[in-house]
Amino acid sequence: MDRRKFLKSTAIGGAAAASTALAAPAYAQGNRTLTLVTSWGRGLAGVHDAAERVANSITEMSDGSLTIDLKAAGELVGAFEVFDAVTAGQADMYHAADYYFIGQHPGYAFFTAVPFGMTAQELVNWYYHDGGHDLHSELGQIFGLKSFIAGNTGAQAGGWFRKEINGPEDFNGLKFRMPGLGGKALGKLGASVQNVPGAEVYQLLASGGLDGTEWIGPWADEKAGFQEITKTYYTAGFHEPGAALSLATNLEVFESLSPQHQRIIEIASGESHQWSLSQFLANNGAALQRLQASGVKILTFPDSVWDAFGAASSEVLAEDMSDELFKKIYDSVIASMRSSSGWLKQSSTAYVAQRDRVMG
Amino acid sequence: MDRRKFLKSTAIGGAAAASTALAAPAYAQGNRTLTLVTSWGRGLAGVHDAAERVANSITEMSDGSLTIDLKAAGELVGAFEVFDAVTAGQADMYHAADYYFIGQHPGYAFFTAVPFGMTAQELVNWYYHDGGHDLHSELGQIFGLKSFIAGNTGAQAGGWFRKEINGPEDFNGLKFRMPGLGGKALGKLGASVQNVPGAEVYQLLASGGLDGTEWIGPWADEKAGFQEITKTYYTAGFHEPGAALSLATNLEVFESLSPQHQRIIEIASGESHQWSLSQFLANNGAALQRLQASGVKILTFPDSVWDAFGAASSEVLAEDMSDELFKKIYDSVIASMRSSSGWLKQSSTAYVAQRDRVMG
Repeated sequence: MDRRKFLKSTAIGGAAAASTALAAPAYAQGNRTLTLVTSWGRGLAGVHDAAERVANSITEMSDGSLTIDLKAAGELVGAFEVFDAVTAGQADMYHAADYYFIGQHPGYAFFTAVPFGMTAQELVNWYYHDGGHDLHSELGQIFGLKSFIAGNTGAQAGGWFRKEINGPEDFNGLKFRMPGLGGKALGKLGASVQNVPGAEVYQLLASGGLDGTEWIGPWADEKAGFQEITKTYYTAGFHEPGAALSLATNLEVFESLSPQHQRIIEIASGESHQWSLSQFLANNGAALQRLQASGVKILTFPDSVWDAFGAASSEVLAEDMSDELFKKIYDSVIASMRSSSGWLKQSSTAYVAQRDRVMG
Repeated sequence: MDRRKFLKSTAIGGAAAASTALAAPAYAQGNRTLTLVTSWGRGLAGVHDAAERVANSITEMSDGSLTIDLKAAGELVGAFEVFDAVTAGQADMYHAADYYFIGQHPGYAFFTAVPFGMTAQELVNWYYHDGGHDLHSELGQIFGLKSFIAGNTGAQAGGWFRKEINGPEDFNGLKFRMPGLGGKALGKLGASVQNVPGAEVYQLLASGGLDGTEWIGPWADEKAGFQEITKTYYTAGFHEPGAALSLATNLEVFESLSPQHQRIIEIASGESHQWSLSQFLANNGAALQRLQASGVKILTFPDSVWDAFGAASSEVLAEDMSDELFKKIYDSVIASMRSSSGWLKQSSTAYVAQRDRVMG
């Protein structure tokens, strides 16, 4: 609720409030249509698909009584304007990567990905069973949003470069696209970091406005066409080990919905997270092979570069620790990650190593 | 549809069929209640929770117009009788691990887990984007079921033993509980394998009817109380690298539902898969520490045992290849797993190794 609305509603006085205190909650009757704005152009593989998946699930599970009208980036507001559009009530929901909004609050970084942070599975463990969703709601209270994770790209690739990266000094002066705290960390290494919406990256890279870019991973990157511009590609990156996407609804709108519609939004979001993550992971392997066959050189960063990524990331995370909520979320993330990653190593990872050894 | 019903309905003749050919599909009107039988006692952590999660999601997202009445194992039918109860129409749905039903068709093994098969993430990639769900439906057509995965335990632990396992010969004559193709593989090593419902394992192990058992993983195993009986526990196992649970609806019942209710069942199942997997993974780390602190010895199988597991598993899988559908599912699983696991190794696994190295 904004300040003006608050003053207006309290001005009505205590009598009106008392008269409705015992009435049933006044859910809007009849069919409703909610406008969903996204940070994705319609051509962006995976991320736009995740937004479409959750929108269609909501519409279909409510039999149209809650219809989602999806407006891709630029159709109603720009890719990075979706947060302000929804908090201001210009649109009802957004689908985006919450780390685009660290300017609004640095804590939003954790609900996409932070450097050296959680894998997609570790994030889900935390989100559903170790307090993550509650913290997402606590952040949302500040801005008037109700958020659920509703997509995930998996661990993102290091990205596309015009020249090979042999040491941390090669980032000095490099014009590179990377959002979130990862981008801030690259800045510490001397890179000139730019945060450009997905749909604009190709043009900027082709024109020389960028020396390099990370986007997502082999499948989405191939669809974006970066291999037409440069042939140097790094696989594992430090910056987004499991980047979640969020569906955020204006809180007043959300609270005006029936419990049924609220539950539909929640469950559709969760299902979309799983569906989306598996879409990226099912397609990346074959895409990487195609890229390699087309002459792209597949590389991994040397340890010296990972060490520099680590030092820069710790520095960047430390800068926001003075914010109490940021620190609260960070502490929660680290505690959950430590517990969760230990077992994964002893079970899944140990198993896959034996499978490879025994079955080849 | 069974043969008797088919004959009865065709006996009505062509005229009745023609008169309804242009009418809208005749969905049952008003509120419906479906009976869900499960393979889980109410006390079984994680697996019963997953069944409850999907049941509640369906009821709430339909605002009670599709209410799920959950009957735990033994309340209507026994743990392993749920498949026959639903195909016969005695109950509407079951929640179980489909590998309990390899007696009905060996292909059901793939929809829980097979030895040296897919991790939970690889399975999801296959299920949603590489043909897995379609194959689940193809199997279901034979028996009159519509199935969705709706839970996952993650990679299961090697299990509880009275004596340490130092070589494959230690399985000779061992009375051990393990369902599915993993159990058949242990049989090749000379074990006397028993398939006992979860709720009965503790008693049988305590009384000496079993020399050892696998159940799920640290959290669910601790809740089951096996540490009260023996203190020797093996972490990674070969038998269930990511065991999915399924929600299966009688096909005639499913087809009588509106598209809205069908979609609610589908999306609720998918969400429950993710929620359930993360419940196990969020809880296993702390449970393993508690077990260790209480005096349980945490061990891993030596390579010689893994090699024997591998040979026995290959033998067991080969035995069912004469079944055309089993082979079709196997080929689909292997192709998807190869593609999917390659990228996971280059991204997530490589990232976690660097995170451990750099951040400690």
